[in-house]
Amino acid sequence: MNSVQPASPVNGTPLIGKLAVYGVGLIGGSFALALKAAGAVSQVVGVGRSRANLDAAIAAGVIDAVAVDDEHAVADADLVLLAMPVGQMGEVMARIAPHLGKSTVVSDAGSTKRDVVELARRHLSASLSRFVPAHPIAGAERSGATAARADLFRGRHLLITPQAECEPRALSLVRAAWELCGMRVSTMDAETHDRVLASVSHLPHVLSYALVHELAGRANGEQLFSLAAGGFRDFTRIAGSSPEMWRDICLSNRDVIVDELNRYRAELARIEALLNAGDGEGLERVFAQARDARNRWLSIR
Amino acid sequence: MNSVQPASPVNGTPLIGKLAVYGVGLIGGSFALALKAAGAVSQVVGVGRSRANLDAAIAAGVIDAVAVDDEHAVADADLVLLAMPVGQMGEVMARIAPHLGKSTVVSDAGSTKRDVVELARRHLSASLSRFVPAHPIAGAERSGATAARADLFRGRHLLITPQAECEPRALSLVRAAWELCGMRVSTMDAETHDRVLASVSHLPHVLSYALVHELAGRANGEQLFSLAAGGFRDFTRIAGSSPEMWRDICLSNRDVIVDELNRYRAELARIEALLNAGDGEGLERVFAQARDARNRWLSIR
Repeated sequence: MNSVQPASPVNGTPLIGKLAVYGVGLIGGSFALALKAAGAVSQVVGVGRSRANLDAAIAAGVIDAVAVDDEHAVADADLVLLAMPVGQMGEVMARIAPHLGKSTVVSDAGSTKRDVVELARRHLSASLSRFVPAHPIAGAERSGATAARADLFRGRHLLITPQAECEPRALSLVRAAWELCGMRVSTMDAETHDRVLASVSHLPHVLSYALVHELAGRANGEQLFSLAAGGFRDFTRIAGSSPEMWRDICLSNRDVIVDELNRYRAELARIEALLNAGDGEGLERVFAQARDARNRWLSIR
Repeated sequence: MNSVQPASPVNGTPLIGKLAVYGVGLIGGSFALALKAAGAVSQVVGVGRSRANLDAAIAAGVIDAVAVDDEHAVADADLVLLAMPVGQMGEVMARIAPHLGKSTVVSDAGSTKRDVVELARRHLSASLSRFVPAHPIAGAERSGATAARADLFRGRHLLITPQAECEPRALSLVRAAWELCGMRVSTMDAETHDRVLASVSHLPHVLSYALVHELAGRANGEQLFSLAAGGFRDFTRIAGSSPEMWRDICLSNRDVIVDELNRYRAELARIEALLNAGDGEGLERVFAQARDARNRWLSIR
């Protein structure tokens, strides 16, 4: 055994020899840092659109090298993580497919899963059985390699949506890697994933963007913002998220998000009816049920 | 000059000899603590529904005594602050009106102003010209006397909505008291106040309550909450607010809140049209305008 190899959680051999990260931002970069901190990876190469970001990633010790091309990035990689916005996923899959090694496992960190699975079926051909669709649920209001941190995923949920043809070895590797990052891993089907995330993540983002957009467009927008306080700041925090990323999520999951919007608009119509009727008891009941549900959630979180 | 009097910012005489606080919660209690910290009040008496809360307020040094009745509370008070939910305001005004001293100034801390002004006109009779409607805009997710802190109002906005018949001396006293609490004071009419607050506070609260209520009522509510993350937590923080307080605000400002809800639902309909059309450019434009407006706000806040 070579004593200069990184410390390892299993038998002194790192789980992953070479990791290739496509999209070295908050998620991809934090995955690399967490695996390095766990001694679970020997070498990390990065690929991305912005050379400045990749240089910053090297300077911060997030990646060890920038791959010269896709072949050098993935041919001898044990694991390839696709961590760019979902809108770029198909093109990158098509680019790497011809170069993927016979045992290279591919995974992703996309916020939607039905579309990613469909893209993998279309583009990954021979490597499809070694593709493991996954979604680490971790806050992402900051972005870029310099925002990456080894503890970003600790205690958070990872959802894997494996396909029928997935090789058990590939699934195990991806599960083990994210568990070493501190995540709680569950599996579900891609359809369920996209519905659940539409409810608790995609819909709230749309609602928050909508409020800020609507108020900012008014003639007295500046007065309104000048008198907004802490409640408004927290409600709209997610309206500070990346427009590009959320455009892609909304496009790829739009049928479900439209369903969610309709359910939500129906709830608003019910509340409006209570307001119009001056039904204080009814309003207080809605508010109290919401507060209690949220407090229960916080208490077991 | 009596040397045992508290230190004072003006000529050694406290701005307020006796302050009576009705509703010794987060807002009323913090007002008392801030004025004490500024050496601007000699004595604070408290009145409230819960004896336990008043005892806790004495123990915490928020108030000096519990008034035995309304007459003892207000007859010789320089300032009476009404800091209970708006729904109780009318009853309390009717109770204290017969006992108010000839120079006693009355103010409130209600979140809505048209209704408070109307109640004052109905109930305060001879003291109406010494009533100064005001609204300190300060976060209030915690409640009760023990949540009070002297620095709650520092740097925040106070909105005063004075009526035509308001005595200049009364207006000056209320303005000076809140300025000593560290607030930035502006005046506007009650109608404008209620419209602005509906946009940046009342509507977001309704939207946040609505989301939590709608999701909690679903068969898979527990699964949904179990996979909610930090964005959901912040978006729904205001759904942890007091249902009683928000019932009262919604009832008293319901015409304006219904207007706001309709504008918001129209915005959601526009976003839904972009989703249905698969208009990625349009979605990204909405999201980017919202993000940029929010970032501008944060940068000058």
